[in-house]
Amino acid sequence: MSDFKNVKAGERVPFKSYAVADKNAKFKLWQGSRHPMGEHDIIIEIKYCGICHSDIHSAKSEWHEGIYPMVPGHEIAGQVVAVGSKVTKFKVGDFAGVGCMVNGKCGCPACSADMEQYCEEGKTVFTYDCADIYHGGEPTYGGYSDNIVVRDEFAITVPSSADLARVAPLLCAGITTYSPLKRFGIRPGHKVAIAGFGGLGLMGAKYALAMGAEVSIFARNSKKEKIAKDLGCKALYDSTDARAIGERFDFILCTIPANYDLSAYVKLLKHGGEFCVVGLPPLGERPSMDVAELVFAGQKKLSGSCIGSMKETQEMLDFSLKAGILPEIQVVKANQIDWVYEQLLSGAGDFRYVIDMSTL
Amino acid sequence: MSDFKNVKAGERVPFKSYAVADKNAKFKLWQGSRHPMGEHDIIIEIKYCGICHSDIHSAKSEWHEGIYPMVPGHEIAGQVVAVGSKVTKFKVGDFAGVGCMVNGKCGCPACSADMEQYCEEGKTVFTYDCADIYHGGEPTYGGYSDNIVVRDEFAITVPSSADLARVAPLLCAGITTYSPLKRFGIRPGHKVAIAGFGGLGLMGAKYALAMGAEVSIFARNSKKEKIAKDLGCKALYDSTDARAIGERFDFILCTIPANYDLSAYVKLLKHGGEFCVVGLPPLGERPSMDVAELVFAGQKKLSGSCIGSMKETQEMLDFSLKAGILPEIQVVKANQIDWVYEQLLSGAGDFRYVIDMSTL
Repeated sequence: MSDFKNVKAGERVPFKSYAVADKNAKFKLWQGSRHPMGEHDIIIEIKYCGICHSDIHSAKSEWHEGIYPMVPGHEIAGQVVAVGSKVTKFKVGDFAGVGCMVNGKCGCPACSADMEQYCEEGKTVFTYDCADIYHGGEPTYGGYSDNIVVRDEFAITVPSSADLARVAPLLCAGITTYSPLKRFGIRPGHKVAIAGFGGLGLMGAKYALAMGAEVSIFARNSKKEKIAKDLGCKALYDSTDARAIGERFDFILCTIPANYDLSAYVKLLKHGGEFCVVGLPPLGERPSMDVAELVFAGQKKLSGSCIGSMKETQEMLDFSLKAGILPEIQVVKANQIDWVYEQLLSGAGDFRYVIDMSTL
Repeated sequence: MSDFKNVKAGERVPFKSYAVADKNAKFKLWQGSRHPMGEHDIIIEIKYCGICHSDIHSAKSEWHEGIYPMVPGHEIAGQVVAVGSKVTKFKVGDFAGVGCMVNGKCGCPACSADMEQYCEEGKTVFTYDCADIYHGGEPTYGGYSDNIVVRDEFAITVPSSADLARVAPLLCAGITTYSPLKRFGIRPGHKVAIAGFGGLGLMGAKYALAMGAEVSIFARNSKKEKIAKDLGCKALYDSTDARAIGERFDFILCTIPANYDLSAYVKLLKHGGEFCVVGLPPLGERPSMDVAELVFAGQKKLSGSCIGSMKETQEMLDFSLKAGILPEIQVVKANQIDWVYEQLLSGAGDFRYVIDMSTL
């Protein structure tokens, strides 16, 4: 544990973490410091941090060249240990959550419309692997750490009764799937397919079911068929058979973090249906489609969705806790991160691994 | 003129036409015959036929290997000269229009939902360059001809007061642009962009204006700027500058029949906006886009639209005639088709060329 709880005003905040030194490196214990707590900032002692597939893409520089040393982690749940002079939203001792953003709401049309994740000025500060323009461009470091300093409006209020280990993955896997299903207006009578049945896919299935839809799953093997059925899903299909399925869906939520047959999935939509991408495969392994296919496809739509706004994230958390929609998790120790990455890459993994930060 | 008006029951219907012998050939006068008029069919004496960019793609085998000799033309307006025994929709002497389909409504979900242009059984019979499964697979021949035999439900009722030369292009250029604008629900307050300002683009602009939207045009040069302004459009932008435009649109209707910078246009959408493709570039010149761009794009949608159903085509025609929305045309002789193709390919052409079939 670093001595972040006794940091003085104006001092940088020390942290202890697990980081990678470059895109081929294994995780190692690493200590650094965060910018001093500003008047609108809070310091959160991180209790649990989920491991998201995005962390793997980022750590391995699969999306863009990463900033190293890199501390991934944007599914953060913990307890407030210090608050800036102008913070009214939190007090010391409160539970709080942090997702993919730590700062950045500006006055652009997107930010003004509570869609700050699409800031048109590019001012969003992502939780890790990002140059923080509000702090001299220094890199941000994520949640595989004992603490984080974050602007209060980018932290989510978590009730003290919540199970922080299971709240953590909601901050990315939860909001990323809740937001597009909510926007589309999923309701009873809709047929929804979830493509990819990992951490995001499971949450997507739970939300779509809670919204009243009939839900089917596309997964790369049938290992999780019983889980899908027990949840209340209609079927679990082998994703390599996508072209052979006779069903037609109103909405397909695609969480697959690798390449896939986009065209086959579009064929599975009803006329007027929508295929929404939330999974982000590595560069060079991204599906694309001749736009002419859309002409003949029957008024089908292709869309994408990126996490959700802070307002929507709070709404998602409140909804999830009220409805008892929580991720299936396996709690791991901080020194198991490399092993978890291997599990996720091989497809052998469980839904969501969450690091217990007391093991740091 | 072929002797199609005196054809006896059960006899094939002779026609005279302009056809290409192969994908590199010039148009030449050619005589052939159509299947005998069935009890649900009508024979239409073609008075005018519009020249659509699709005709060029088809004649040159740019979408798929064509069936030759090929008689293009799917913007057909004329007068009924014979009706089958079970036809009640038309009588001899009526004006009628034919668009891109001549037969094919089946019981599949798409056909049952009045979306027969997306028939899921692939039974749509297109007006030319198509194997007619209802007539032993023989090729269909289009409207660069003195007549056509068509199933009554695939012909549109045209009032006798209508100007047939200006009605003809509505059957493809009209419906192709009307349908997606209507489906999206364009209304006052919407900002619409029309990309490509040829035969389809002009109609799209007219419909969007009639629906109350603010309309801007993207064209490959500024030659038609005055026309756009006179119509009531806000601006005509150079399409090569698409990335530099500061505006944001609710809906972009893309009629461009060549490759373009899809990504630049998607950036021009408002959050939640839709880019709808109706133009169909040649194979190998089709835009595509990394789906990941959609993730970060802000809930924008990519869609396509293919002509419209027969029901919608009738609605479009009635709406157009009532509102006085008609194409800008140049009437040409049948022996000018090759010249027209050159004009359209060079971008020097006018909006719509229509063949006066009395010149055949």
